[in-house]
Amino acid sequence: MTQKIIRAHGRAVDQLRPLHFTRHYTCHAEGSVLVKLGETWVLCTASVEEKVPGFLRGTSRGWVTAEYGMLPRATTQRNQRDGTGGIRNNRAVEIQRLIGRSLRAIVNFEALTGYTIVVDCDVIQADGGTRTAAINGAYLALHDAVTKMLKEEIIHENPLHGTVAAISVGICAGQTVLDLDYQEDSSAEVDMNVVMNDAGQFIELQGTAEGHAFRRDELNVLLDWAERGIQTIIAKQHELIAD
Amino acid sequence: MTQKIIRAHGRAVDQLRPLHFTRHYTCHAEGSVLVKLGETWVLCTASVEEKVPGFLRGTSRGWVTAEYGMLPRATTQRNQRDGTGGIRNNRAVEIQRLIGRSLRAIVNFEALTGYTIVVDCDVIQADGGTRTAAINGAYLALHDAVTKMLKEEIIHENPLHGTVAAISVGICAGQTVLDLDYQEDSSAEVDMNVVMNDAGQFIELQGTAEGHAFRRDELNVLLDWAERGIQTIIAKQHELIAD
Amino acid sequence: MTQKIIRAHGRAVDQLRPLHFTRHYTCHAEGSVLVKLGETWVLCTASVEEKVPGFLRGTSRGWVTAEYGMLPRATTQRNQRDGTGGIRNNRAVEIQRLIGRSLRAIVNFEALTGYTIVVDCDVIQADGGTRTAAINGAYLALHDAVTKMLKEEIIHENPLHGTVAAISVGICAGQTVLDLDYQEDSSAEVDMNVVMNDAGQFIELQGTAEGHAFRRDELNVLLDWAERGIQTIIAKQHELIAD
Amino acid sequence: MTQKIIRAHGRAVDQLRPLHFTRHYTCHAEGSVLVKLGETWVLCTASVEEKVPGFLRGTSRGWVTAEYGMLPRATTQRNQRDGTGGIRNNRAVEIQRLIGRSLRAIVNFEALTGYTIVVDCDVIQADGGTRTAAINGAYLALHDAVTKMLKEEIIHENPLHGTVAAISVGICAGQTVLDLDYQEDSSAEVDMNVVMNDAGQFIELQGTAEGHAFRRDELNVLLDWAERGIQTIIAKQHELIAD
Amino acid sequence: MTQKIIRAHGRAVDQLRPLHFTRHYTCHAEGSVLVKLGETWVLCTASVEEKVPGFLRGTSRGWVTAEYGMLPRATTQRNQRDGTGGIRNNRAVEIQRLIGRSLRAIVNFEALTGYTIVVDCDVIQADGGTRTAAINGAYLALHDAVTKMLKEEIIHENPLHGTVAAISVGICAGQTVLDLDYQEDSSAEVDMNVVMNDAGQFIELQGTAEGHAFRRDELNVLLDWAERGIQTIIAKQHELIAD
Amino acid sequence: MTQKIIRAHGRAVDQLRPLHFTRHYTCHAEGSVLVKLGETWVLCTASVEEKVPGFLRGTSRGWVTAEYGMLPRATTQRNQRDGTGGIRNNRAVEIQRLIGRSLRAIVNFEALTGYTIVVDCDVIQADGGTRTAAINGAYLALHDAVTKMLKEEIIHENPLHGTVAAISVGICAGQTVLDLDYQEDSSAEVDMNVVMNDAGQFIELQGTAEGHAFRRDELNVLLDWAERGIQTIIAKQHELIAD
Repeated sequence: MTQKIIRAHGRAVDQLRPLHFTRHYTCHAEGSVLVKLGETWVLCTASVEEKVPGFLRGTSRGWVTAEYGMLPRATTQRNQRDGTGGIRNNRAVEIQRLIGRSLRAIVNFEALTGYTIVVDCDVIQADGGTRTAAINGAYLALHDAVTKMLKEEIIHENPLHGTVAAISVGICAGQTVLDLDYQEDSSAEVDMNVVMNDAGQFIELQGTAEGHAFRRDELNVLLDWAERGIQTIIAKQHELIAD
Repeated sequence: MTQKIIRAHGRAVDQLRPLHFTRHYTCHAEGSVLVKLGETWVLCTASVEEKVPGFLRGTSRGWVTAEYGMLPRATTQRNQRDGTGGIRNNRAVEIQRLIGRSLRAIVNFEALTGYTIVVDCDVIQADGGTRTAAINGAYLALHDAVTKMLKEEIIHENPLHGTVAAISVGICAGQTVLDLDYQEDSSAEVDMNVVMNDAGQFIELQGTAEGHAFRRDELNVLLDWAERGIQTIIAKQHELIAD
Repeated sequence: MTQKIIRAHGRAVDQLRPLHFTRHYTCHAEGSVLVKLGETWVLCTASVEEKVPGFLRGTSRGWVTAEYGMLPRATTQRNQRDGTGGIRNNRAVEIQRLIGRSLRAIVNFEALTGYTIVVDCDVIQADGGTRTAAINGAYLALHDAVTKMLKEEIIHENPLHGTVAAISVGICAGQTVLDLDYQEDSSAEVDMNVVMNDAGQFIELQGTAEGHAFRRDELNVLLDWAERGIQTIIAKQHELIAD
Repeated sequence: MTQKIIRAHGRAVDQLRPLHFTRHYTCHAEGSVLVKLGETWVLCTASVEEKVPGFLRGTSRGWVTAEYGMLPRATTQRNQRDGTGGIRNNRAVEIQRLIGRSLRAIVNFEALTGYTIVVDCDVIQADGGTRTAAINGAYLALHDAVTKMLKEEIIHENPLHGTVAAISVGICAGQTVLDLDYQEDSSAEVDMNVVMNDAGQFIELQGTAEGHAFRRDELNVLLDWAERGIQTIIAKQHELIAD
Repeated sequence: MTQKIIRAHGRAVDQLRPLHFTRHYTCHAEGSVLVKLGETWVLCTASVEEKVPGFLRGTSRGWVTAEYGMLPRATTQRNQRDGTGGIRNNRAVEIQRLIGRSLRAIVNFEALTGYTIVVDCDVIQADGGTRTAAINGAYLALHDAVTKMLKEEIIHENPLHGTVAAISVGICAGQTVLDLDYQEDSSAEVDMNVVMNDAGQFIELQGTAEGHAFRRDELNVLLDWAERGIQTIIAKQHELIAD
Repeated sequence: MTQKIIRAHGRAVDQLRPLHFTRHYTCHAEGSVLVKLGETWVLCTASVEEKVPGFLRGTSRGWVTAEYGMLPRATTQRNQRDGTGGIRNNRAVEIQRLIGRSLRAIVNFEALTGYTIVVDCDVIQADGGTRTAAINGAYLALHDAVTKMLKEEIIHENPLHGTVAAISVGICAGQTVLDLDYQEDSSAEVDMNVVMNDAGQFIELQGTAEGHAFRRDELNVLLDWAERGIQTIIAKQHELIAD
């Protein structure tokens, strides 16, 4: 493969950044995972609350939702603290909806009757791919919270019927790349986030052309690479869970 | 093809709803298009403003952005008026970002120096597919605004280098369907919005599994159908513009 | 009459603009009327909700309220979308309170026990007189919603004990004028909105001197003209209802 | 006159409540007047600011505006502090717009070049008629601020070309009454606020039917009474200013 | 004592400003006290509400809380009205928390079962020391509200087990001063607010170095002076209550 | 010393929790310190911005300010994300003002001309004492940012003229304790936060009686203990800086 772009740390175009999960990172949350995907660090905490949102009251279904935030100086330039002036960050809203949907895709709500699990994903340090890192960590935090609930006999059946993981792919300088860092993301012509389960099926697919509308054949390569990246991540998640 | 689901008005699974554009609908906006996609009606107005957002000041680039809203009783149940209580609707935020990115994909900003075009997409009546209807109408409103600017010699080069259109596809009751109405959307197992240009390339791709994670072969069928639907829409847009 | 001002479309000073109501305009609302008063277009939808505001809980009274909004580009210059930044438009607040009071003046709340009807008045295109057009359309939307409730035996007695209509009068360039358009409204020395019922009685009277404080004799002429204008509108409303 | 209603403190139906103005009440504002209209107390301060609102920049016109607020326990029941939770009180918005327009009706803005006078009307204790009391006090506060500006040669011509005053009239239990207190206001069938200048001309007229739509002859009596009430108030204002 | 600074009105460095309380100032509140500490005037109203905050529901404890506001032109320059633009004033938030804690220090909540007393402290005119004046007046308003509740047999035991008062001390131009006015406060090197009860014990102590970090011996002098100032205030409060 | 309370981990009543600073924790901020005070973890980042707040424009002074936040699940129960619903957390506002004042007490603003340093203190995990931990870490982050500015010759003189540190002291079960954890803080009768500089002088002193008003002699003991605790912390800070 003729590699046209030079990636940081000599990374190959189809190579993930070093991925590391620290479970039980903080002490209060039922699930707490610090995920590091290269220089992107996200703290994912899963909180179990004994209540359900209004639209589920009177049903036997529980709920899983996510919130996403970024510390003001997680980025190269400081951003205004979210919520300042009463305005929530639009980008954050979009991302937390994606995380929530991704997690819900593997949850059997009947097994969570009466409970909501809120997964907070807070970016401590950002270098591109915060939403995919968040999903990868959020899954583990959710898993750990659910395991705790089972162990404490708060619930009696595992509500998770699969594993979920996510990665970004894109086209930079005409070259397909896996797992874009901030530098790459800023200059990418195509940017795509892919969320899949451990059966190799798609849960979410969000592709955006930024300056270069992409052809069907380009899409197919992007999806191939994403699939392989996600397999690697899920393998890592399974390994941790098995322990 | 064995058709498993019965669609409203006897529509075939791969058939678009009747699509109708009324150009110059309201009198003040530089571009004003009422788009009707079956019972989904969206008013798209393009407003030319002689200013650019802060991050473009000092550059030679103009800007295109979109806002999306829904009248409180556009839906079967009345929704709280957006902005009431100081809270913007998260779903609206996500949709208007999609519309904005879709339009920007066909704009040469160097040809819009000093100007921002704001395309407001307001849903008068909703029956599913409001975001795709909005993109289809927004393109025409943007086109009309730009044509007016060229005619009045406010700008001297056409900043639009393509046509953009969008459609939804999904899987309902195990059956692939094109252009989902509200009823179908509510019960869909997979829901995907596809935005393409007139060169048949992808601009945005947003697929979501709702209860059924989808395989690569299912994705391919969805994309084929979306492609054909979008070709039909672009043909209609081109016909109108040619007049 | 020596006519000192030239009105758009050759309109006489004491002449209403063409007034047109489209009933059942949108499909979801219990009442839905698009009212066009010249170039001023307002969509009025009446939504029946099975609940009452807090201050009526425990009583046998229902409620009628109104909300007013304007699409961002209903006007010659685009306005910020209402609710953006958490700030509601002060002018909109004042107008929606006027519409609500006007409608409530003809409602017997005992006949609406347990129900609130919310009438949303959204300005699609503005050319002066949006609040009077809104009241005229809102009455019909409310009428249609109530008729539907009676027909479906949700309520058993007609809660409306009259018809309500509104018009503006003013003094422009020293000349009394009926039903001011935006151009006239902007330069009026006196601006008055009058709301009356079909018994020829006043429901609301809001007169404002803008540069010319008005004498009692001038007021009397303004009221005479408003009265005649409103009679014409109510005749139109009655004709439609009778059908 | 056969008096059907018994008013507090044996007041006649056409009698104002005791009206008292304390000028120079607080020490910082350029104009500061505590107005007491019976048990309704409003503190009106006029603040001179060397700036004009955006829409007047580049013109030679100054501006006068008003804000209205109410202390949380000015009323029989405590109200939530205005602004709490990011929501401004709709009623307050409507009232402050009325006060602002009333004051502007007697101002020559060319004589205020470069300056805005903000008149804050804060209700210390409420017993009905807070908006009319506020206008009466606001005029004096504005007068005092303008006098100070003239004395200090900040401006060189008196921008006030008249006096403005306001009173409420209404119909209670079928009886016309002047200057309604809270008790009367709550049960009034017709409620009208009238703002006039010292030439006996109308500046604002806001009449509302609450349960009883009013006839033209009733309106005429209401206006006669309001006129006489306002003459009394203006006489008091002139007397104070003359000192 | 060699006095290095000249205070307004020839006041000695260890002298309080004239302190005056007007009880029953407004008529609606259960307790209503206008406190004047020199040119600092604060209206304190205590409102009894038959409800408790969420965290006390199901307990036998009542609650006391405080809110603090300032009229826009209480100060030398006009401030934006609190709550405008949806933003509460940070300084106000800090002060109202201090007032609330100070009052709660002398309340036995078991004797207030089911009730919340909200003490609103609104600054009518400011000249430094608004928070200490507010606490002094708030105590009396609370006392009067509680006395009324006892008299009306709403409660049966006095929930107040002490008296609370507050004063500021500071260091200006190297000199210890008691009860700083605005001029002194603005230039103070050390600024301290002290809240004590009638047993001579501390309830709150808030000292801030502004340009001069203070030594332990300086602190001791500040506390001595504050103690004496507070004794004077409590004597005045006791005298009033005894009447 | 007869120790009446048993502290977690066998800690002595006058013993600090293990205190650990990780400098250069995140990579983007000019100063970035993760401070761990027992189980209380706060990330403090110092961001240099080339601008000053409005009130300093036109002067030669720079500025230092602080913001404080807490991740939603830093605590035993999840808290609503700050800023949600447009409401900032009042407690957070109070704390960030304390941190800002504490830092400014050791800054010479003339040496920071044209620059603002924003220190964000975000609580990752909370176990009492978050504000004192934040101040201790914020000082180091500020120090590191300033050192970087000096090294890069952005500024030419060290604006820091001292070291600042903070600790809490309190009375629990009648016993004086140093550095309260959450358990102790919740049940403390007296809670005091003390901020001092390396000259042993006070910068901030905030003492609150919670159920037990404290005597002067008790205060003296609290201050003695705080002083010794702060000496230990400053020794640690000096040691790190010296490296």
